[in-house]
Amino acid sequence: MGGRKRVAILGGGFGGVYAAMTLEKALRYKDDFEIHLINHENYFVFQPMLAEVISGSIGIMDAVTPLVRLLKKTKLHIRDVEEVDLKNKTIRTSPGFVPRPHIVPYDYLVVALGKVTHFKGMAGMPEHAIPFKNLGDALYIRNHAIRAVEEADIEEDPKLRQELLTFVIAGGGFSGVECAADLNDFVKLIADKHYDAVAPSDIRVILLHSQDRILPEVEEKLGRFAQRVMEKRGVEFRMNTRLVAATKTEAILQSGERIPTRTLISTVPASPNPIVEKLDLPKDRGHIKAGLDLQVEGSDHVWALGDCAVVPHPSGKGFCPPTAQFGMRQAVVAAHNIVRAIRSEGEKKQFAFTGLGKMCSLGHQSGVAEIVNFRFSGILAWLFWRVIYLSKLPGLDRKVKVAMAWFLDFFFPPDLVQLKVFGAGAIKQEHYEPGEEVFRQGDIGDQIYIVLSGKAEVVLPDGGGEKILAALGPGEYFGEMAILGQTTRRATVRCAESMDLLCLRKQEFGALAANLPDFKASFQKKMQERLSAGQTQTK
Amino acid sequence: MGGRKRVAILGGGFGGVYAAMTLEKALRYKDDFEIHLINHENYFVFQPMLAEVISGSIGIMDAVTPLVRLLKKTKLHIRDVEEVDLKNKTIRTSPGFVPRPHIVPYDYLVVALGKVTHFKGMAGMPEHAIPFKNLGDALYIRNHAIRAVEEADIEEDPKLRQELLTFVIAGGGFSGVECAADLNDFVKLIADKHYDAVAPSDIRVILLHSQDRILPEVEEKLGRFAQRVMEKRGVEFRMNTRLVAATKTEAILQSGERIPTRTLISTVPASPNPIVEKLDLPKDRGHIKAGLDLQVEGSDHVWALGDCAVVPHPSGKGFCPPTAQFGMRQAVVAAHNIVRAIRSEGEKKQFAFTGLGKMCSLGHQSGVAEIVNFRFSGILAWLFWRVIYLSKLPGLDRKVKVAMAWFLDFFFPPDLVQLKVFGAGAIKQEHYEPGEEVFRQGDIGDQIYIVLSGKAEVVLPDGGGEKILAALGPGEYFGEMAILGQTTRRATVRCAESMDLLCLRKQEFGALAANLPDFKASFQKKMQERLSAGQTQTK
Repeated sequence: MGGRKRVAILGGGFGGVYAAMTLEKALRYKDDFEIHLINHENYFVFQPMLAEVISGSIGIMDAVTPLVRLLKKTKLHIRDVEEVDLKNKTIRTSPGFVPRPHIVPYDYLVVALGKVTHFKGMAGMPEHAIPFKNLGDALYIRNHAIRAVEEADIEEDPKLRQELLTFVIAGGGFSGVECAADLNDFVKLIADKHYDAVAPSDIRVILLHSQDRILPEVEEKLGRFAQRVMEKRGVEFRMNTRLVAATKTEAILQSGERIPTRTLISTVPASPNPIVEKLDLPKDRGHIKAGLDLQVEGSDHVWALGDCAVVPHPSGKGFCPPTAQFGMRQAVVAAHNIVRAIRSEGEKKQFAFTGLGKMCSLGHQSGVAEIVNFRFSGILAWLFWRVIYLSKLPGLDRKVKVAMAWFLDFFFPPDLVQLKVFGAGAIKQEHYEPGEEVFRQGDIGDQIYIVLSGKAEVVLPDGGGEKILAALGPGEYFGEMAILGQTTRRATVRCAESMDLLCLRKQEFGALAANLPDFKASFQKKMQERLSAGQTQTK
Repeated sequence: MGGRKRVAILGGGFGGVYAAMTLEKALRYKDDFEIHLINHENYFVFQPMLAEVISGSIGIMDAVTPLVRLLKKTKLHIRDVEEVDLKNKTIRTSPGFVPRPHIVPYDYLVVALGKVTHFKGMAGMPEHAIPFKNLGDALYIRNHAIRAVEEADIEEDPKLRQELLTFVIAGGGFSGVECAADLNDFVKLIADKHYDAVAPSDIRVILLHSQDRILPEVEEKLGRFAQRVMEKRGVEFRMNTRLVAATKTEAILQSGERIPTRTLISTVPASPNPIVEKLDLPKDRGHIKAGLDLQVEGSDHVWALGDCAVVPHPSGKGFCPPTAQFGMRQAVVAAHNIVRAIRSEGEKKQFAFTGLGKMCSLGHQSGVAEIVNFRFSGILAWLFWRVIYLSKLPGLDRKVKVAMAWFLDFFFPPDLVQLKVFGAGAIKQEHYEPGEEVFRQGDIGDQIYIVLSGKAEVVLPDGGGEKILAALGPGEYFGEMAILGQTTRRATVRCAESMDLLCLRKQEFGALAANLPDFKASFQKKMQERLSAGQTQTK
């Protein structure tokens, strides 16, 4: 490592970026240490504007800033952190173009990994709920919503059509409310302007919240105001309930209600990054314990800040909330104290920020804001939101682009390009609840299925009723007949007991079957058994 | 179908869109027929501006226009065409949200399916060459180039570093030249501005062309001028050669030269759409034969136009070239004649356009143009290019956005966000040429491989030299040890004879192995055999 000390920063969110920016300032006077930052993406996400990407009020790239643009003197590693060795002071990242380990040694460590979306233990959520956290999520939601309306425009089955036109958002905090408000405006506007067979009144946008009012972050009056504004625009609310399960076609609520939908977005709070979980540092419910100097308890070279840390609130009561305004200011203090540790000079700084205010945009020139002791709502809050966040958006070019996009948004209709850039996974999981069909007799055979848990039943229409041919449990598979035999589905398969399936696409199943003789043989044997059993049954 | 006749248009490129727009005009006076258009994407791609998406001179969405915006009275089916039944006059499309067939009946058919990129029969090209035809391709190239420079900035292996910084473009026509010029400007600019460890002079951009000069579409003088301009900016040329094969790490030329690279873009002419191949219509080398009235020979209700058709050149000599200016004007004539057929009125129109001119932008305020009898180059040609194509770009909002993007491009550095939206395929193929390594002892085990053709050898270092442990041929697999045993690669595997591999990612292999006991057992048996053989050998 030579004589120069190295600071490694994990994470490129508000915490990591502001720590690096502050450290870079210290290098202006004396170039005596190196800064390395490791992040999965090569850009910084300005979270408050993410919802506007959904509606297209701003361009796809406008809510994010390339890290190289913000950090001129920091070495960037656009990789995933895979392991931190606190003893040997090294970080192992994911491989790049070749599968070789990449090791980054350090002297001082800043952990600012934030949180990750995690649907652990919620049936069907990892498979069927869309998170709303990063740029990819916003883009996915936008594309998916456009596709749903497009498909509804040519769909003749009324049940599927209503599923396509129902959008469910779980979580009534800032991000859920902004997402629901923007999505509601967007889908209704495009239905009205561009799709003859879809009326805005056919569309349902439903927001779920676990408490009796939305926006728990602000005063009750403002939360109620926001809800009224959104109700006027047709958003439906389900209060005091939460999601308990999800399938491809339904959102299942704690209240027992099952909402048929093809679009389920969840903004429920995320859990700590799994890398943080593995770090042997003092923690409080998964978050790293840091002091007011942001140093990790009991360590002399590790700092933690932002959403992955618990930092005492400077007021003495409780802890800092997991928000950008706290994260970025913690980063500045941490950077200051790191420079002090490297140069052994100056005073140690203590975190003293107690919060400025909160704002939420409701779209359509409305919003709510709580700033110091002032509370306001409507167009004034909305204007405040735009002015303040525009000033906080890093990078002059981004500011100009967003300002222009907002300006053009007054004159031009929303953009409707659906960027089909997400390839469907070749192997994925699906969750089903009793009564739901996996496929129906006559459908196209596009996948084979392996039962991971639960129970499926194979049924055939029989006179006016139906006949159950077989029940399938864990380890059994189905759907191979239509694929190996090149026909449509010969029977209907539906869920008998809450079940999880592993699905393998036709094309990939074909590639494996063609090249692994054992693999193919076992499926063919099963198919023959079923065919002869079927012939016996239908005789 | 009721009494209203239905016109179905296959394809949403210049031909399909202009046919629909012209048909819509006829509906203004008499609303007596329906228009349906089927296209894979929900947007129209303005090909001439695609190269600017790579460099970020314009926004990602600026080179495309949503079809709904252009076609207000046309029913859109955003699906793939899977089959056309000419006898029963129906079209079957790919399924939407559920795997059920979607059938579109028609009375009149317009085939405007263009061409598709096809690397048939070229070893390694489908797996490793990047096409440059649609918006997804441009975005992929852009993201890939950013990632390559980012990785080079932290890569210590000089061989891999040079591969990352070498960009090869095959095809010296308009699209290859524009792509090479824009990519060259972009990667050198970002290296210069943002990546300390990468100098612009480390970067190689190489353009291959099968003739002795580029831009065969224009006069020789202009082609030579373009080449000189690009040479001055550091683009290398390989003339009178073409690609014969590609691997993950090399472009292999007809001349025998092997260029180590991680970025290989091919703009070589594409082949007809497979749907067109299957149509039982008169054809000339895969293209549908249409007359000067754009009607398909011997049919009274099928029209064909654009790149998928051969239409006699109105001058009487040869056929119309496959360009946008011809396609859109053919579409207008075809639409006129369809209306005439539906309403049994008016005169039949004949295609009479003979071409206006050709232009190619070289970036950096330079270009070449050939308009009627005038030929010019440099800044004037570049300005012409911008003015003419801006005027042709459909939609006022797009015009304004592109004009603004060009304006801001003078002041702000290029955007650098890498949108990681392309998931790596779970099961894919790779091509190797003799001597290339699949993996090296000590690498991370990330995939298992099945040999489809050719020969691999397993080698271990042995003293100063090496020892060949085994040779593997078609149907055999390798790489399972590191994955089943959770270790790094125990030996090096490299290509002995030109080979193709089927690769299955660790995660998906694991999912299948966990749930298909037969599948896992056959791999485990093989591993045991190999382990005991290895122990014998190393004794």
